[in-house]
Amino acid sequence: MQSGQTDAHPLDGTASVNVGAVPMIEVLRGGQVESVHTGHAVICGPDGEIVAAWGDPSAVIYPRSSCKMLQALPLLESGAADALTPAHLALACASHSGGAIHTDLAGRWLADLGLSEGDLLCGCQEPSDRSARNGLIRSDAAPCQLHNNCSGKHVGFLMLNQRLGGGADYVDPAHPVQRAILQAFEDITQEASPWFGIDGCSAPNFATSVTGLARAMASFAAADSEGNARERAAVRLHRAMAAHPDLVAGQGRACTDLMRAMDGQAAIKFGAEAVYVAILPGQKLGIALKIVDGGVRAAEAAITALLIRAGVLDAAHPAALARLGGEMRNWRGISVGQIRTAAGFA
Amino acid sequence: MQSGQTDAHPLDGTASVNVGAVPMIEVLRGGQVESVHTGHAVICGPDGEIVAAWGDPSAVIYPRSSCKMLQALPLLESGAADALTPAHLALACASHSGGAIHTDLAGRWLADLGLSEGDLLCGCQEPSDRSARNGLIRSDAAPCQLHNNCSGKHVGFLMLNQRLGGGADYVDPAHPVQRAILQAFEDITQEASPWFGIDGCSAPNFATSVTGLARAMASFAAADSEGNARERAAVRLHRAMAAHPDLVAGQGRACTDLMRAMDGQAAIKFGAEAVYVAILPGQKLGIALKIVDGGVRAAEAAITALLIRAGVLDAAHPAALARLGGEMRNWRGISVGQIRTAAGFA
Repeated sequence: MQSGQTDAHPLDGTASVNVGAVPMIEVLRGGQVESVHTGHAVICGPDGEIVAAWGDPSAVIYPRSSCKMLQALPLLESGAADALTPAHLALACASHSGGAIHTDLAGRWLADLGLSEGDLLCGCQEPSDRSARNGLIRSDAAPCQLHNNCSGKHVGFLMLNQRLGGGADYVDPAHPVQRAILQAFEDITQEASPWFGIDGCSAPNFATSVTGLARAMASFAAADSEGNARERAAVRLHRAMAAHPDLVAGQGRACTDLMRAMDGQAAIKFGAEAVYVAILPGQKLGIALKIVDGGVRAAEAAITALLIRAGVLDAAHPAALARLGGEMRNWRGISVGQIRTAAGFA
Repeated sequence: MQSGQTDAHPLDGTASVNVGAVPMIEVLRGGQVESVHTGHAVICGPDGEIVAAWGDPSAVIYPRSSCKMLQALPLLESGAADALTPAHLALACASHSGGAIHTDLAGRWLADLGLSEGDLLCGCQEPSDRSARNGLIRSDAAPCQLHNNCSGKHVGFLMLNQRLGGGADYVDPAHPVQRAILQAFEDITQEASPWFGIDGCSAPNFATSVTGLARAMASFAAADSEGNARERAAVRLHRAMAAHPDLVAGQGRACTDLMRAMDGQAAIKFGAEAVYVAILPGQKLGIALKIVDGGVRAAEAAITALLIRAGVLDAAHPAALARLGGEMRNWRGISVGQIRTAAGFA
């Protein structure tokens, strides 16, 4: 089933992601607006209908890491992951900080598959986890692929590949792993993906509209734990994310802090270039947003605003204030400004 | 003399910085536009007239660090800095990386004034210079105020304060140092500054229009080395910046790399929240731009485009390609996209 193709924003690349974007987040200094971020956001209900939207719901984006739980569906639906714990599943959906909790689990998982770090194709990346980073510096050691924020996703790809029997290059768009992912992605977004890009971790990243992405999140939110294979997989995945916020990102990161603040009421996930999604099972709602300029702080502020609006996040919680509405402080801790929503948003 | 007050964008805070902004920089992945940055840019000639503009030339912004050479004018005009070398002046204009070359010079300069790190009010900041950062980590040492990217500017404030005889809190907007800076700032932008904010380093940052900032840069570009005190100060400052690109920023940073690539033809300076300025003495031109969302990569790409357009930067130079037009590579070095100018810009 294809949807999202309208005259206003054809899924054929002739319009650009900034078309129809609206101001969403303002950064103030000295009481004046210093910078502004525009974007698109959609909230979908359980039948995939748009419940609320800002900007152009049909804007086409790369979900980037925000769709890792969608990329994990074929693994779970194959039955190959039946014995995986929620921690494994959370790591498969993670853009983690490369801390010990992340690399230890990724390493053990690989070993349990009879594989090693050399089988990964995500590339090396210095961990953002301070302790891990500093440890590498002190020992003059280079980061390895386990430290790559996408390593959990890639171990999941390798596990699925053992079931599908494809070749070693599991990130090739023509590889059975990626073809299975594309199929699931198009099914759950209910759109034909118009194109794909290559992600930072070398995996293909399939484009969809902001509505398609929100619709997929709503499907996860509405999934029945005793439903069909896809629904059971979706429930396992979003529950795993909400149960292991530390694995999905890491200390001090927005996904981790906000999920902890919401105490299991939502699973949320950031994607590079300022994409954010949320799965709200209690209300069977899915949220997706894209900040057009790619600004991380604005995506974090915007998802915070939408989670507050949905009643699952307390605006006064320190994790929320740190991203929206709290005081911005300078190098001496002096309050210099703040981040707020633009008029008309959330 | 006030200027910049028009119906379209009054200098009274009722409009917002995003009004009138135009797409300037596009980020592509897989051949599709993934993110877009909008902004304003102005090129002024020696008489302060607008030679070229994009977006709204009257948009009001905080110059942030891009105006450090303006903030240094009172120091030089006071005569207190007559014995300072170009290296000192470059450091006074710098947002440096906190490397040894920066902290050593800042420390010596302070000592020569009979002062110490404790007299600074910029706050501590972990250096972005890798070697300095790693050295601190290895020795379990905390960064000090010398590492703060604005420490050179602050030593300049302290030196001026010794001449003016003000109190210890030289960042108080009412302090003689800051009052002298505001006077020079308004004179050279030819605008009454409508408001100020507090910068990351705790110094006041006076707002002006993009045109006011470009006009100030053009004044520097057109200044006669044998002219009045202000002109002689301006020439000393921009020549010092161009002669010491490593001090103005640091290894791998855009200001450093691009100034090296231009081999003295221009002095350029970045300001937080994506402001960039350029002083082109050969053509007596000044440039100022603001990317509305604060995106650093877009400010770097946009100033690169304008320097190429002005004929002072080779588009094929690696330093230029790294910011505009070159291949964007992922964690495995695979080409995944690029940054380009939007249609209609530069």
